[in-house]
Amino acid sequence: MPHFPIRTDLALEAREFIEEANGEMRGVIVDTYSEASDTIQVTHVQITTKNGAKAMGKPIGTYITLEADNLTEPDDGYHREVSLSIARHLQSLLPDSEKEQSILVVGLGNRDVTADALGPCVVDNLNITRHMLRQFGHAAYDCKKVHEISGIVPGVMGKTGMETAEIIRGIVSTTNPDIIVVIDALAARSTRRLTRTIQITNTGIQPGSGVGNHRDSLTEESLGVPVIAIGIPTVVDAATIVKDAISHLRQEDDEMQNILYDMNNMYVTAKDIDSTIKRLGYTLSEALNIAFSLCNESD
Amino acid sequence: MPHFPIRTDLALEAREFIEEANGEMRGVIVDTYSEASDTIQVTHVQITTKNGAKAMGKPIGTYITLEADNLTEPDDGYHREVSLSIARHLQSLLPDSEKEQSILVVGLGNRDVTADALGPCVVDNLNITRHMLRQFGHAAYDCKKVHEISGIVPGVMGKTGMETAEIIRGIVSTTNPDIIVVIDALAARSTRRLTRTIQITNTGIQPGSGVGNHRDSLTEESLGVPVIAIGIPTVVDAATIVKDAISHLRQEDDEMQNILYDMNNMYVTAKDIDSTIKRLGYTLSEALNIAFSLCNESD
Amino acid sequence: MPHFPIRTDLALEAREFIEEANGEMRGVIVDTYSEASDTIQVTHVQITTKNGAKAMGKPIGTYITLEADNLTEPDDGYHREVSLSIARHLQSLLPDSEKEQSILVVGLGNRDVTADALGPCVVDNLNITRHMLRQFGHAAYDCKKVHEISGIVPGVMGKTGMETAEIIRGIVSTTNPDIIVVIDALAARSTRRLTRTIQITNTGIQPGSGVGNHRDSLTEESLGVPVIAIGIPTVVDAATIVKDAISHLRQEDDEMQNILYDMNNMYVTAKDIDSTIKRLGYTLSEALNIAFSLCNESD
Amino acid sequence: MPHFPIRTDLALEAREFIEEANGEMRGVIVDTYSEASDTIQVTHVQITTKNGAKAMGKPIGTYITLEADNLTEPDDGYHREVSLSIARHLQSLLPDSEKEQSILVVGLGNRDVTADALGPCVVDNLNITRHMLRQFGHAAYDCKKVHEISGIVPGVMGKTGMETAEIIRGIVSTTNPDIIVVIDALAARSTRRLTRTIQITNTGIQPGSGVGNHRDSLTEESLGVPVIAIGIPTVVDAATIVKDAISHLRQEDDEMQNILYDMNNMYVTAKDIDSTIKRLGYTLSEALNIAFSLCNESD
Repeated sequence: MPHFPIRTDLALEAREFIEEANGEMRGVIVDTYSEASDTIQVTHVQITTKNGAKAMGKPIGTYITLEADNLTEPDDGYHREVSLSIARHLQSLLPDSEKEQSILVVGLGNRDVTADALGPCVVDNLNITRHMLRQFGHAAYDCKKVHEISGIVPGVMGKTGMETAEIIRGIVSTTNPDIIVVIDALAARSTRRLTRTIQITNTGIQPGSGVGNHRDSLTEESLGVPVIAIGIPTVVDAATIVKDAISHLRQEDDEMQNILYDMNNMYVTAKDIDSTIKRLGYTLSEALNIAFSLCNESD
Repeated sequence: MPHFPIRTDLALEAREFIEEANGEMRGVIVDTYSEASDTIQVTHVQITTKNGAKAMGKPIGTYITLEADNLTEPDDGYHREVSLSIARHLQSLLPDSEKEQSILVVGLGNRDVTADALGPCVVDNLNITRHMLRQFGHAAYDCKKVHEISGIVPGVMGKTGMETAEIIRGIVSTTNPDIIVVIDALAARSTRRLTRTIQITNTGIQPGSGVGNHRDSLTEESLGVPVIAIGIPTVVDAATIVKDAISHLRQEDDEMQNILYDMNNMYVTAKDIDSTIKRLGYTLSEALNIAFSLCNESD
Repeated sequence: MPHFPIRTDLALEAREFIEEANGEMRGVIVDTYSEASDTIQVTHVQITTKNGAKAMGKPIGTYITLEADNLTEPDDGYHREVSLSIARHLQSLLPDSEKEQSILVVGLGNRDVTADALGPCVVDNLNITRHMLRQFGHAAYDCKKVHEISGIVPGVMGKTGMETAEIIRGIVSTTNPDIIVVIDALAARSTRRLTRTIQITNTGIQPGSGVGNHRDSLTEESLGVPVIAIGIPTVVDAATIVKDAISHLRQEDDEMQNILYDMNNMYVTAKDIDSTIKRLGYTLSEALNIAFSLCNESD
Repeated sequence: MPHFPIRTDLALEAREFIEEANGEMRGVIVDTYSEASDTIQVTHVQITTKNGAKAMGKPIGTYITLEADNLTEPDDGYHREVSLSIARHLQSLLPDSEKEQSILVVGLGNRDVTADALGPCVVDNLNITRHMLRQFGHAAYDCKKVHEISGIVPGVMGKTGMETAEIIRGIVSTTNPDIIVVIDALAARSTRRLTRTIQITNTGIQPGSGVGNHRDSLTEESLGVPVIAIGIPTVVDAATIVKDAISHLRQEDDEMQNILYDMNNMYVTAKDIDSTIKRLGYTLSEALNIAFSLCNESD
């Protein structure tokens, strides 16, 4: 099986890379269809065996990718469609979604680096309920059933001195959520995926993933509760851009090693990344607020 | 002993209030002197007995108050003097300060409310060492001895759904610091104390204190490790301002109850609070960086 | 006529104060009614003569006040009602609102002081069209008629060294807008008006008004184009709170002078001011986006 | 003379590119030397003729480049050296620097895009004097001579609808500064220049330059007062990175056109860009505060 000289957090791109190199793929089930009058393309990837996991470079589990072309256009009606779609797919991965549960939402990323600020931006706009339920009970809300929602922005290791996994593990031990939902900014292989692709997976966060190259994993194995990860690619790793660009030229070069060395710890992103993060943040937080609402009319 | 109809986080003001009502004070030892060529007034209050604690409305322990008149003036030389003084007094409360230890610094408060943003502001400017020591060892630094410094901004319950004590307790359980230093914005009784008074205490954080009226305590009892709290008053509780204003008129009034009810959850602060918080944040973070440095020439 | 020992930017409160002191009021026409199924109370004040202006302490012109009790509740449906109401009343003050015009929106206030950040917050969420129209013409939009909307956050004199009037006058001279709409955080007399009252006036901004006590005026006289000002009170001047509290005790006192001196440059605001500013910012920016839309279906 | 298929705002890199293609360079005088015990390399480029300007793709004028390897290391002593050096070179370009003058400092860039936030960050930390001098005269300061310093962050066209040149021209017309100093984040050709190179020039800002690709020029010609520009490269244009990477492979390709099209409006920057911008912001603002101080002991 080919190894991965390119970097991507998207199962979608991992699959494309495999297919280009080696058409056949066992232990990986792929289903594609469209939603919202064909404006959203859904790719449902299930990695079912160890071989499939090894080939894809990603663990066994489910990866739902939504591609929404106009995600960065300022059309509020369209964004509502996307939020509803994300909410439905998220609910399909939530265990026992009709039962009241306590859900900890983690906004990974660095608030002060625009391209990595998606997680914090989403958590900032969440409907937090845990403290209200604890103080006032269901009287605080109009619905019969209400999930207990808490949120945390753990920051990044360069600023806290601690791995986010240490912080989250500690919070899990004192507050005992039933489920964790992690929001993260991802790295894609191609600029064409940026800010128009949403990945939802029940495999949590793997080491090395995200714009921040997370050191630890945030998974059911490491935290003891199911972890659902939602990510949107906002950057392409710079070395990957260059490798991809020259790959078809089929030329090896010593000079290339120097150039790629300079690309270390650099990323490529778009100039209007601030308005993009703001818009994506609203769309995702709206999706979570819808997904977590147990009322009959959703809000 | 008189009870406390006024609200203050400052032991200094609590003592003044007691003295006004009842000159004698047992179980409370007070020492005052000046530093830095008389530009800093130090008041050292030790509450030694349960009676003293009851009278003062604060637990047994040490409270060091520094009053620095020109704290908000843009004089960098003066600020350095104040930072050195804070550092010395903080070190006097750190157990085993010559030995390498792991110290978790907690920036309490709400980043988005200027008067309550002191804690986050200080942690943002701290020299964080824990991740560097873990990855590179002492080779990362020029000193033979280096404290392992980590920092966290836990946010406020209205935004996380969790009490800061739950978050800190969890982090303590996974990272095991030897000491916790908490930075908080305080409420004073009088506007004359605002932003020119620094309180350092080894009694941690009490319920009801701080601009945010913290619900839980952050103390050695509740967290299992020594907790040193450093605070600067940035607001006066609005009801306290009014009560204080009319107290000498010695008149009771039903109408006053209505007025005081409107003051509920309101605070009084100065118009230039942003530049003040910025300046105080630098002075305090510089103080901590100096206090935590084990090198021969401090920096 | 009584003079004004209390400070308020609200014509509504100025009128109440006058009526308490001297029931009769000439040169001031007041009309009150309700909207949105009685959830919004509208007070329409027109000062028509110099005597009325002198009595009210405010210039000749129109002052529309909307009182919406639930403005800080997280009810999106209700906020839409309020935005529509603000939009309608703003349009009633815009000259030639059916004709395409260029409108400069000015967000007064200090971004870094939460209670004074309303203006910047609103401008941040505005649909800015001027650069798109200049580059692409009407092809950039789906409507036949589009106002040319520009926005500026001039900052505060303490940070720029310039009066906002100098900055705005300069921008008016180079970009020539037809109308200016200014957004500002106001000071009220009573905490009961805070964050639930919206004032819209065609008299622009007067010296001494706003949380920032603006030094210059921003009016048609000083800028050469009509200026509409929209404000929401977020603070009460601290000296005013104390004076109001003791006024009914009818006692004069030297000590009171000292207390009031300490209140100088202080203000009273609520603890949850950040979520309030965020919510009010969205409601107001939505109102402006609706008011400035010339399409058949508003958005 | 070769044209410029690569993008760079640095005269230093423009000169390297010319030399690689065509050793000889007329109308361009270059002087190099080191400062601060060889820790800072200074390159002094003067373009003196139209031919030189055409060859370099930059207008006639002086370009001083400082290369400071350790600019992003947290060494406060070293940063002071760099600030002093920048201050000296800035003063060498200020006309009549010993005479009191009014200086408008413009922080170009988008606060909300980390890599483009250098300008705003510097202006935020400037000692602003204009309003103090106007209100209190020289009594406000300890020095006999004080420059009148004002500062503005005009924002970006996508958020204001106006070109920064329109805003600055307006402010110049009402406040009449003697000199303008503009701070901007630049685009370099190579990642090796990023965040360790400072360019100071008396030619102002050219169209197409900066991370934001400024549309208008900010020069003495367009504004009527001398304009000094100080910039630090924080990004490399993505298309330039790819072209540079493949240039030595000397292969033309249709596929390459597609790849380069995707790079449109993308940039490459480092992961730790936030702490870098913060540090560079302090170093530059300290440099300006030193350069603008007319006191005998600089601070």
